[in-house]
Order: sequence, then C-alpha cells, then structure tokens
Amino acid sequence: MRHVLEKAQKAKQASMLLACMGAEEKNRALLAMADALVANADDILAANEKDVAAAKERGTAAAMIDRLSLSHQRIQGMAQGLREVAALRDPVGEVIHGTLRPNGLAISKQRVPLGVVGIIYEARPNVTSDAAGLCLKTGNAVVLRGGSDAIHSNMAIVSVLRAAADEAGFPADAIQLIDDTSREAATYMMGLNGVIDVLIPRGGAGLIQSVVKNATVPVIETGTGNCHVYVDEFADIDMAVEIIHNAKTSRPSVCNAAESLLVHETVAAEFLPKMAARLSNVELRGCEKTRAIIDAKEATEEDYYTEYLDYILAVKVVGSVDEAIAHINRYGTKHSEAIVTKDYANAEKFLAQVDAAAVYVNASTRFTDGGEFGFGAEIGISTQKLHARGPMGLEELTTYKYIIRGGGQVR
Amino acid sequence: MRHVLEKAQKAKQASMLLACMGAEEKNRALLAMADALVANADDILAANEKDVAAAKERGTAAAMIDRLSLSHQRIQGMAQGLREVAALRDPVGEVIHGTLRPNGLAISKQRVPLGVVGIIYEARPNVTSDAAGLCLKTGNAVVLRGGSDAIHSNMAIVSVLRAAADEAGFPADAIQLIDDTSREAATYMMGLNGVIDVLIPRGGAGLIQSVVKNATVPVIETGTGNCHVYVDEFADIDMAVEIIHNAKTSRPSVCNAAESLLVHETVAAEFLPKMAARLSNVELRGCEKTRAIIDAKEATEEDYYTEYLDYILAVKVVGSVDEAIAHINRYGTKHSEAIVTKDYANAEKFLAQVDAAAVYVNASTRFTDGGEFGFGAEIGISTQKLHARGPMGLEELTTYKYIIRGGGQVR
Repeated sequence: MRHVLEKAQKAKQASMLLACMGAEEKNRALLAMADALVANADDILAANEKDVAAAKERGTAAAMIDRLSLSHQRIQGMAQGLREVAALRDPVGEVIHGTLRPNGLAISKQRVPLGVVGIIYEARPNVTSDAAGLCLKTGNAVVLRGGSDAIHSNMAIVSVLRAAADEAGFPADAIQLIDDTSREAATYMMGLNGVIDVLIPRGGAGLIQSVVKNATVPVIETGTGNCHVYVDEFADIDMAVEIIHNAKTSRPSVCNAAESLLVHETVAAEFLPKMAARLSNVELRGCEKTRAIIDAKEATEEDYYTEYLDYILAVKVVGSVDEAIAHINRYGTKHSEAIVTKDYANAEKFLAQVDAAAVYVNASTRFTDGGEFGFGAEIGISTQKLHARGPMGLEELTTYKYIIRGGGQVR
Repeated sequence: MRHVLEKAQKAKQASMLLACMGAEEKNRALLAMADALVANADDILAANEKDVAAAKERGTAAAMIDRLSLSHQRIQGMAQGLREVAALRDPVGEVIHGTLRPNGLAISKQRVPLGVVGIIYEARPNVTSDAAGLCLKTGNAVVLRGGSDAIHSNMAIVSVLRAAADEAGFPADAIQLIDDTSREAATYMMGLNGVIDVLIPRGGAGLIQSVVKNATVPVIETGTGNCHVYVDEFADIDMAVEIIHNAKTSRPSVCNAAESLLVHETVAAEFLPKMAARLSNVELRGCEKTRAIIDAKEATEEDYYTEYLDYILAVKVVGSVDEAIAHINRYGTKHSEAIVTKDYANAEKFLAQVDAAAVYVNASTRFTDGGEFGFGAEIGISTQKLHARGPMGLEELTTYKYIIRGGGQVR
C-alpha cells in the first residue's frame, strides 16, 4: 500500500503550505480549476464514456447510469460549483475567542484547517470536484477515493484540477486521487492516523457503516436519514397533508426525505384518507389502526427502521406526542424530524425532546440542506454529535488551535 | 454482555430527562452529591483500603499506590470539585447562532447535551466523581468504566453519588458504573453506537490507543503529549532556560510537560551549558552537536518520539526555525509546542506552521490546562482535531441541534 501512503503523505506536505494561505490565493486556484474543467470538458467526457460503457456492459440499473453520466451541462455545473465556493467567505483565521489571562498570557482560539481530509465516495463523479473545492477553500488538502465505477472520470477530473492548480501557482499535491479502487486500499486509508486527519464517507448506508466500523482515523458519519413527520392532535390537517406530501415525494432518494408518518389517533380518521389521496403514487405500509382507516400493506417492525429512499411510506397511529417522540428516538437516525401542530406546549416538547440534528415545527424535513440553511455550500449532512451536526458548510471543515503569546511566563 | 448493555440503555433513558433540565436542578444534585461524598467518606475509605491492600499484595509500584489511595483530604477535594462545577455557567440551551431565512423559516442553532458519555479510565478513583460531575452539569448521562485496581473504590463512590442524586430528585440512572472490569466489557462498550454517543478515554497511551483502535462509537482522543520547546537564534537565553526548566521539571508526569528541547545552532554554545546546569536533575539525551557542547547520552530516533513523563529530556541542535517546525510536526503529538524568541517573523511563522492544539511564544507548555485557560474545569486535553482541541471544558461536552420553526413551508 506504499502508493496510497505516498499520496497521503504528499497531501500532508501540501496541507502545511495551504494552512498559511490567504483567501485570495486559494480563490485564484479555484477559479482556474473551474475554467480548466470547462476547457477540458471533451477529455473528461471521453473518460466518462468509458465508465458508462463499462457500467452498461455490467447491466447496471438506469438510475445508477444516470448518476454516473457526465455531460457538457453537468461539467458546467461542476465549474459553477467551484466558482460559488470561491465567492464564499473563508472561515480560516477567524479568532473565535480571545482572552488575556491574569498572568499576562494572551490566549486566542483561532480557526485553522483540519489538515488532510479523506473522502470515500461512490459513483457520482461530480463529488470529485465538489469535495476538492470545499477542502481547498478551507485550506485542507484532500485525498479522494471514489468508486471503481467512476474511476476513469475521476482520474480525468483530478488530472485537470491538478494541472490548473499547478499553473495557478498552487500546490497540486493538495489534490490526491487514490486510483486503486480495491477494498484493501480504502481500508488502508482508514488507518492512516497522523497523516489523514478526518474521513468523510459519502454514499449509501453500506459504505458509511463500513467506514465507521473500520476506520481508526476520526470519521464524520453522514447521510442516513430515517426522517419522520408527526401529525399532532392539534395539527392543521391541510398543512399536514402538504408537508408530508412534500417531505415524501419531492425527492424520495435523498436523506432528508420522510420515511415514516406518525399521526395522533384523534385526527387519524380525518387526516389519513386525505393524505392517502394526496400521496396516491406512494405505497403505504401501516399499523393495524392505520389499516382500519385506509388501504395499506401491513407494516413490520423492520419497516419502521427502514430508509426506503423510494415512494414508500410507513404509517403509525400513536396515542400522544410522548409516544411519537419515543418512537422517533427509537427508530430514527437523528437526522431530521418534524411535528405539525398548532399547540404551543406540544411544539416545544417535540423540539426539546427529539434527539436529531434538525427538528422542525410546521415545515418539511426537506429543508435540512446547506443551501437552504444559508451556508452556501455543503460537504454532507452529519448524523453524529461530535464536531458537526446537520448540514456541514465551510466552518465544519475547520478546527481551531490555541495561540498563546507570552513574555516568559512559567507555571 | 447484557449487563453492560442494560446499564448503557438506562443511561440513555436518563439522558432524555437530563436534556430538558435547567441548571438549578442539576446544580442541586451536584451539591447534594458533594455533601454525600463527605458524609460517607468512611465507607469510601474502607472500600479504597481493599483496593490498596490488593495492589500492595500484587507488588504495585509506590507511585501507582499513591494515585490509587484516597484520604479524607482527597475526598474533600472530590467534593470541592463537584461544588466548583456546580458554580460554573451551564452552557446548555445557549443559542449559538440564529437566522430568519427568506422563506420565513426561523432557524436557531442551539447547544444541547451530547447524550450519553462513556469514560474509560485507569487507576485514579477521583476521576469517577470528577467525570460524573462534568457530565451531569452539561446534561449528559455518564457510563463509567474504571480499571480493576480501583473497582471497590469506584463502586463505593458511585453508590454514594447515585443515592444522593436520587434523594435530590435527580435520575440516579444518569450515573452508571460498569463493574465488570474485563477487557471484553470495555470492548463491548466501545461498540455501543446509538446508545453511547461519545467515548473519552483517560489514561496512558496504551489505553487510549486501544480505544481509538477498537471503538466504533466516536472517540475524543486525549492526553498524549510529546511537547517541545524550541530556543530560537534570537531567544532571550535566560528566559529560555527558565521556560525549559519549568516545562520539563515542574511536573514531569503530566502531558503538557516538555519532552524534547530544540536549540538553534548559533546559540547552542551559550544556551546548552546554562540549561544543563539549571536542569541538573534531568537526564539529557542529545544529538551529536549537542554532545560536542555538553555532557549527554546519545539520543536515538526513538528518543525523539518518546513521551518520557520522567526527568529525561531529548535535545537536538537545529539549523533554522523551519527545521525546528518540521521536526515538531514530524515527532510531536499535536499537544503543546513553544518557541522562545525575540524575533517577530520567527514567532509568527512558528505560531502559523506548527500543527498542535496549543502553540506558545515565550511561555511554558505547562499552561495547557482547563484551569489555566480559564475554563474552570476540564475533562481532558484533546489531541485530535475533530470536535475539540486542547483543554476540554463544559462546552466541549455539548453538541448542538438545529431548531426550525415554520408556518407550513414546503420545498
């Protein structure tokens, strides 16, 4: 695994240079990289065609082929992403807090890059430029390890990005692609403590669990969302119908889509038929009480744990807001949870007691997103509690250090 | 391992109650616990005597016996620690940031407890009450897993704390002690994702590495400090002598003590003899250039990696501030690093380029400490970059969640 180690070490070396760089220099490189993607679109598309052809030959599903496929328009989108990141405020160097201690030591807590960020991801080749852009903007070097499906595309994109960085006088070694797509290479990368500072897996639940399980490098767990909408006894029924319709169907394949609907028993008879009519293209799987009111398959225990990412919704009738909260804290993945209610006390209780990154009153869970939260960009949505929770913007790609200026103090 | 799981799950249940608790209620419990420690000191001392007797029988070293031993005074100290924590400001509930989005969603980022904190530690029984106090103050339940050496002491302390909490109307289940001191029980605890939210190991390098390696629950790595003092070409020599004397000898067994000394070649001939005279009780291990100037054993590559925690100091003569920085970033553990200099540019370069939790100009590394930084209390010193870096106070025992109040918004 010397080839993986060497690349990670080069990234580490480059990260030392990046840590002292001002925003102007980093932005210049990002804009050069954006231009280069567009200028070299044909080369990238030719490489992408190889990946797409190989995927088709393997009989890959159409949805996966779509995720893998690039076009001139998609490459323009990647370039636009880099330009937007360049336009954002650079969080590095911010003094978060400062104090003068009684003994005269001046302590300041200052935002600095994490160092080397490892990204382990799957098919989408646009992640390659998106993740690189966010990492460089925040002064981090990046070690990218994409899936084998997109290897030709990723190699072409990284080659373009590195050449553009180099031409802009920026250390190209800050962008590393592990072109060994074996499981061993990924596992090796997960153990590079002291070289890679943080790992961020981006992909399906299987990938993320494998990283959490195997990594000794600190991991930020992202992206699994078994999100609930709870329709309270005091809900505005029409609002509740629109919210669950939006949360379930506006984009079922994403992590902030709703997977389960809970409804208070006193409004179930009124609400459920309206909901079923509005969500006519959704397969409903309900508890016994649900099935006494509307047509639905029988929901199993397993259903309540499942992130369908599809036009399927688990439904359960509950007796109280407390039962709803307990259900969510048991089956949820701590991502995004919503209550629909007009009652003040129930709203506040739900906000306080539900243990999740984002808790909503009277709004769709679909808003959990860096763009919607006003962060300008997002590297993922954290479902863990350490370091970052919910959408992660530029700030979440930084850490801090204490800078202490003295005049000879001893203790 | 059902007994471990059951205790962790009880802690989880209790953590839900704690998350909604105001500071008054938590402080009342902490003060009651402090009083109870003093009131039940005899029982605790009797249990401690069993541990001490067993340790002596095993032929344990005197320093270890001292760490293990309790006295009326030490129990008073534990009680005082709880009272001091009660007097600190409660960080829970703070709104870190709030915004009204263009679509009318009111988003606030609010500080909340982590949930259940697991502490894996070694001999010192005072960690039991210190860690419990800090966790409860911040609304976290705690699962304590101390070493077998202190098991009787820990059981006695936890029994007193739980009874006092219960009497104060506080959920006693928020304090759990795993009384199974087998390695299997600890390893099982490290895999309790979804029940334990964060693990903080406290102890020697072996314990910490074992937790980092085996845990799938997110870990905050603490405490190993291979700290350097670099005496620059433009140093005040007398100040440099006092700083290395303090950093090395004021308390050699702690993680913020210096282990290595770097000195610029142009001042080595003046500085090293003065240093050697001042640190006469310290064994010096030097590079060739060092040994041409002062009496010292030969330092091996291994010496530069070693956290001695003893009256031993590795010494190396370097040719430039850049060489010093490169050495530190290679051999250091990212804990605390100091430069002694009168030169502005070298000071700023060192502060910017050394990758450590705390970087000092003209002060001893020994100041890296929650108390010295003004935090009031400390659960450990983080040497990782995720979540917390350097001394961890109450804030570092919290996370945040996004609270979103809407009026029916869909996306």
